[in-house]
Amino acid sequence: MMQNDTIVALATPSGSGAIAVIRLSGKKAITIADKQFRSVVSDKSLSSQKTHTIHLGHIVDNEKTLDEVLVSVFKNPNSYTGEDVVEISCHGSSYIQQEIIQLFLRNGCRMATAGEFTLRAFLNGKLDLSQAEAVADLISSDNEASHQIAMQQMRGGFSSEIAKLREELLNFASLIELELDFAEEDVEFADRTQFKDLVERINFVLKRLIDSFAVGNVIKNGIPVAIVGEPNVGKSTLLNALLNEDRAIVSEIAGTTRDTIEDEISIGGIGFRFIDTAGIRDTKDVVESIGIKKTFEKIEQSQVTIYLFDAQKNINNLETVRVEIEKIRNKYPQKPLLVIANKIDMLDDTQLANINTIIVDVLLLSARTGFGVEQLTNSLLNLINTGTLRNNETIVTNSRHYDALLKAFEEIQKVKYGLETGLSGDLLAIDIRQALYHFGEITGEITNDDLLGNIFANFCIGK
Amino acid sequence: MMQNDTIVALATPSGSGAIAVIRLSGKKAITIADKQFRSVVSDKSLSSQKTHTIHLGHIVDNEKTLDEVLVSVFKNPNSYTGEDVVEISCHGSSYIQQEIIQLFLRNGCRMATAGEFTLRAFLNGKLDLSQAEAVADLISSDNEASHQIAMQQMRGGFSSEIAKLREELLNFASLIELELDFAEEDVEFADRTQFKDLVERINFVLKRLIDSFAVGNVIKNGIPVAIVGEPNVGKSTLLNALLNEDRAIVSEIAGTTRDTIEDEISIGGIGFRFIDTAGIRDTKDVVESIGIKKTFEKIEQSQVTIYLFDAQKNINNLETVRVEIEKIRNKYPQKPLLVIANKIDMLDDTQLANINTIIVDVLLLSARTGFGVEQLTNSLLNLINTGTLRNNETIVTNSRHYDALLKAFEEIQKVKYGLETGLSGDLLAIDIRQALYHFGEITGEITNDDLLGNIFANFCIGK
Repeated sequence: MMQNDTIVALATPSGSGAIAVIRLSGKKAITIADKQFRSVVSDKSLSSQKTHTIHLGHIVDNEKTLDEVLVSVFKNPNSYTGEDVVEISCHGSSYIQQEIIQLFLRNGCRMATAGEFTLRAFLNGKLDLSQAEAVADLISSDNEASHQIAMQQMRGGFSSEIAKLREELLNFASLIELELDFAEEDVEFADRTQFKDLVERINFVLKRLIDSFAVGNVIKNGIPVAIVGEPNVGKSTLLNALLNEDRAIVSEIAGTTRDTIEDEISIGGIGFRFIDTAGIRDTKDVVESIGIKKTFEKIEQSQVTIYLFDAQKNINNLETVRVEIEKIRNKYPQKPLLVIANKIDMLDDTQLANINTIIVDVLLLSARTGFGVEQLTNSLLNLINTGTLRNNETIVTNSRHYDALLKAFEEIQKVKYGLETGLSGDLLAIDIRQALYHFGEITGEITNDDLLGNIFANFCIGK
Repeated sequence: MMQNDTIVALATPSGSGAIAVIRLSGKKAITIADKQFRSVVSDKSLSSQKTHTIHLGHIVDNEKTLDEVLVSVFKNPNSYTGEDVVEISCHGSSYIQQEIIQLFLRNGCRMATAGEFTLRAFLNGKLDLSQAEAVADLISSDNEASHQIAMQQMRGGFSSEIAKLREELLNFASLIELELDFAEEDVEFADRTQFKDLVERINFVLKRLIDSFAVGNVIKNGIPVAIVGEPNVGKSTLLNALLNEDRAIVSEIAGTTRDTIEDEISIGGIGFRFIDTAGIRDTKDVVESIGIKKTFEKIEQSQVTIYLFDAQKNINNLETVRVEIEKIRNKYPQKPLLVIANKIDMLDDTQLANINTIIVDVLLLSARTGFGVEQLTNSLLNLINTGTLRNNETIVTNSRHYDALLKAFEEIQKVKYGLETGLSGDLLAIDIRQALYHFGEITGEITNDDLLGNIFANFCIGK
């Protein structure tokens, strides 16, 4: 299914860098590029070049030279999109990027929409739908776990499992439908025992995939951790110390409110999103009590709460600290709470013993010296059940897949029940077809423009 | 002059995009890449591939697959640096970029310093020094004029002119030095008339190049324009209207003080930097008078001043406006001043006539409707003498080149004077050698580590 028009977009991040890559795809990609390209070797045309070759020359607009570039040629079907593709590696100024893209827009290209290169790859059968979705996940992954899952999905791990089950089920559906043609003769082409086995197997796999979504979701979106602590308790020092524990990527995500900043840190390959909150001490000040309300909101939105206090400042005030901790524990009995006494490098042994006596399960830590930081990362990782992640099993991270799996699971329950109760073949066939439909939604055998529009709108332009 | 180690860096802008390119250069670039690359075609090694070819496969770290990538192979001397070069086009997540770069750092690569790829290109004779400098200019160029000059310089326009003069001069230097060997015989190998002609020619070219720096500097750095006007006079509407006049690139440059924002707009291919300032009305308020002081400072730093006033609001107040304008004109009689009455779409003909009567040389404009905007862009362009730009002459934009040209010019004056006064060959030769030295500084025949360090430190990493 070849698209008729040729699309162009910047494929590298916007902004200035050493180089930028502009990508063209479509029937006329090579001829359009050829018209604006002058090779350093005289009379060399891109059209007559082999696929997967690179050519040095200039991009020219009439007699004006826009840039010295390297042009990569990919001939269909051996390209990302399955169409003819040209990639132009130019100097990285925004001005040059714009000029070259504008030049191609004036000469027969259309600006690519978000994800349109990958959409074409899907339409041309280079990727199935779940693989295409994994491309976007891969680009947005910022830690090892989400990256590994996206890689596995992009390489077809997930969809091949679904496709295999779908094929087996399709086989049985055909046999049962065949029986219907011979209804009067009362034959059974589909061996009911084998079919029951298959349905059990599908049932088991679906259940496992559906269950994996809880972990998958955590891995994809990171684990929100609320840090409750007063200003100057050492939050940023602690976050930096966590960073040093693990070679990791930090990013600042602007929160929903202007006063919330989320720091994402990868620990043991899992993304943790640390959400800073104010303390919760009782107060009559209106502004402060808004702060307390927000703190509780953040705790509710998080999966883990860290209560961080300044051990030095509060050494004669530990009872108040204990009461605060109790307050949080009572309000959220189900939520894991880590209590951390920071700045313990400033205290003597008697004082440390005192903390341990008054406050139960306290983790003694010095963000400044790094003492206790490893214990904290271990505690955080222990809180998260990522057992399934370890043994290379398929994990579902995409809520669209999750929905389709749930629906398929529902239909398979009906099939199972039908088999157990000796439901007639024609009714059984309807339920099987429904299950097949939902399998097909995942891999893209069943699709529609709205669905594709939604999926690819989440891509960046140029992919 | 082959460097011994292999360098690696991200070549595309940092941040997320569809793809990112990681570049390796050095003796072991291909073997190092080979070790971490698994082709989709079994047993394909990068080492045995032709130059300028692209290969699909995976980057692997032991058994872990980091990404599906396209690898471009360039074999020395046919690469940007003149060394073996490998470019890895990977998925654009920061995480993947980091992982792949870290992998190569662990496997025999060193992180490239700023501009090190281009430095190697220079050291390997792929570019002369002024061409290398043009690469950085090209990347930072954000309008047509600066881009065209950088392109011309990168393609050798400037250095070939210098190199040609240098060669001729070198020729005469040799002849004069030869005369010294035969000093007792009193021969003249160097024809003094021809030599005088050459020196005149060099003198002329140097003078032209030196003079072009004034224009070049304007083109490279943009023309600073101070906009004097009260808040809400319509400054941002005006800047947007200017933007629409010309397909252009806007960027916000943080000014030296927190309250100054510079908007750069390309008009007719020239960059104009608009610097917003407060008004200058007399006031007793201390804060305001600081504002006035700053306004005058900004006017002093600018090449052009725009005085913008709200015609509607000031229609009964035009005398005050006139006095303000006089104040600026008297303070800066040499500086071009454009007076603009904005929001004239809100006034009737009598009111407009009134403005024209009281305020001389006023430009009537409505930023909202676009009326008068074209006249403003024409006025701005007329203020700038870019005559030399039009006829494709070489223009000097680099202050290092300017300094070297000034020094060469000084030495050439001495040679000229020496020739006129019949200075002895040995003394003449010294002055000629000095002039040659300064020519060589431009193209890089004469260089040292400090100079190279300074030049390439201004590059981005990855270039």
